[in-house]
Amino acid sequence: MYYIGIDVGGTNLKAGLIYESGKESGKILSIKQIPLEFQDPESFAKTLANLAMLLLKDQNIEDSQVISIGIGLPGAVSGGEVLYTTNIPMKNIPLENLFRKYLDLPVYLGNDADCAAVGEYFCGIGQNTQDFVMITLGTGIGCGIILNGILRGGDASSEAGHMAIVSESGLSGLLCPCGRRGCWEQYASASALIRMTKEAMMLYPESLLHRIARENGTVDGRTPFQAAKQGDKIAHDLCRDYVRYLAAGAVNLVNIIRPEILAIGGGLAAAPEELLLNPLRDLIEQDCFSRHGGQHTKILRAELGNQAGILGAAFLGKA
Amino acid sequence: MYYIGIDVGGTNLKAGLIYESGKESGKILSIKQIPLEFQDPESFAKTLANLAMLLLKDQNIEDSQVISIGIGLPGAVSGGEVLYTTNIPMKNIPLENLFRKYLDLPVYLGNDADCAAVGEYFCGIGQNTQDFVMITLGTGIGCGIILNGILRGGDASSEAGHMAIVSESGLSGLLCPCGRRGCWEQYASASALIRMTKEAMMLYPESLLHRIARENGTVDGRTPFQAAKQGDKIAHDLCRDYVRYLAAGAVNLVNIIRPEILAIGGGLAAAPEELLLNPLRDLIEQDCFSRHGGQHTKILRAELGNQAGILGAAFLGKA
Repeated sequence: MYYIGIDVGGTNLKAGLIYESGKESGKILSIKQIPLEFQDPESFAKTLANLAMLLLKDQNIEDSQVISIGIGLPGAVSGGEVLYTTNIPMKNIPLENLFRKYLDLPVYLGNDADCAAVGEYFCGIGQNTQDFVMITLGTGIGCGIILNGILRGGDASSEAGHMAIVSESGLSGLLCPCGRRGCWEQYASASALIRMTKEAMMLYPESLLHRIARENGTVDGRTPFQAAKQGDKIAHDLCRDYVRYLAAGAVNLVNIIRPEILAIGGGLAAAPEELLLNPLRDLIEQDCFSRHGGQHTKILRAELGNQAGILGAAFLGKA
Repeated sequence: MYYIGIDVGGTNLKAGLIYESGKESGKILSIKQIPLEFQDPESFAKTLANLAMLLLKDQNIEDSQVISIGIGLPGAVSGGEVLYTTNIPMKNIPLENLFRKYLDLPVYLGNDADCAAVGEYFCGIGQNTQDFVMITLGTGIGCGIILNGILRGGDASSEAGHMAIVSESGLSGLLCPCGRRGCWEQYASASALIRMTKEAMMLYPESLLHRIARENGTVDGRTPFQAAKQGDKIAHDLCRDYVRYLAAGAVNLVNIIRPEILAIGGGLAAAPEELLLNPLRDLIEQDCFSRHGGQHTKILRAELGNQAGILGAAFLGKA
């Protein structure tokens, strides 16, 4: 049977037609991508539905062969409603109903971090587990939690990025746009690493970070890892500090939820294993409670890259 | 049908016979309590089984009318095995098998925090919910998590008390016996409040805390609340600081898991509402992510007191 997943990104809409036989995990048959343009919710819903219909028409598939359609968005959803999105001006929009005016099939909405987790759970590194947590390191830290095979989505969608790791007095810690101080994502998101890299560059004009940034034309999440790989001491210490922040929240997650797997996704996850995942594993090993007994959580790199979004959206109805 | 719950406490074994009709939540028909004595795992199992058999005999109930027996322990369990307990020298003991030599009925093991959560979930403040989290403020902070009606028990039992709330550098934060620094229970358990109270007493000999402690013959979790009620400024500030620490971890839990209810249990939960629960609710309201949308978690006082342990142990098999 067929599923459709639509990934609403920052600049593009990407929709995929997925085939699943039950025996094998989902396979993307075709993908359509168009630039994201937003006028109003009604025409946005129509654009999404048209994209789905185009996928079906191209492959000669009838509506009746489609189990469900999922839409992943950066923001928060509740049932068939978009509470808000971070990139498009939508607030409390009944997107499911609007969509079904044009294509009347079961529709599921999910936030992008939950979709990434669902994608990895059914088709990627999370297959054959029941308790799976995935964090996505990006502008913030997204988190998707699947326990006993059930996604904590919609109203219960995790906001682990807003766990404070620096909060002793309630006055210390970096201010987060969510209104709290000391939130994990202020220390361990890709944006945080870029901020820390720029701070290090201001303090250390002699660091290799400057040359790498010049060569790449920008400072991004790869910059400190590339400089560290080339032996730059400042960059090396920066990566080590970043991993400490990442570990602080990751150990909390592992201690609270104790899943079988904690998967790390987002562009940063592609950093050299000896600079990111291995030291992260060492710190978690050293600090997490399972040293004393209980479930030992595996720390793994997510493997689907940006296809996780489409696959996860497609399978939202299964989780 | 009947269930038996056995609560292995610090100094006593308490066993209850529970009747449940399906229409109403569990009712304790009778309780037996004996002092905790431990020689070896084998005779300990026999004592537990004898206690259960005594309950059945007293009420003329056949073994076949009992659905299951649950044993709650302070420590960690995995399947039918006790990994360790904090009060008795048991390590990797197959308690289920040992018990069933004497009374061959389905046996479930659980840690005490999980049992408290299960008790409240089926018979107390957590009834009619699906997603329920309970923390127990005691020597440490116990945490039981029930999601979609399923307890995260055994190997996956939550250790939310060992979420670090003070961990920026990995070097700051109070050292916890678990090996980590900055763990929540070092700041927000009943023991932490007692430590903070004693520190305040050393610094402020004029505080009313001294008179209250003299009158009660000890410093315990009630001392600062009693002094604050009587207008002592030092005690008032102490309670306020304590609630801040409690809120720091509670907001993290709420943001990560987003349950319907977060219940607060343990002796401390009986503190005056205006000094504990109300300011806690205000801080959580102020800091938690659901201000932006999604599930709004209710913060409630657990209501079963120390009967939660027996009821929860009895119903371990149902969760």
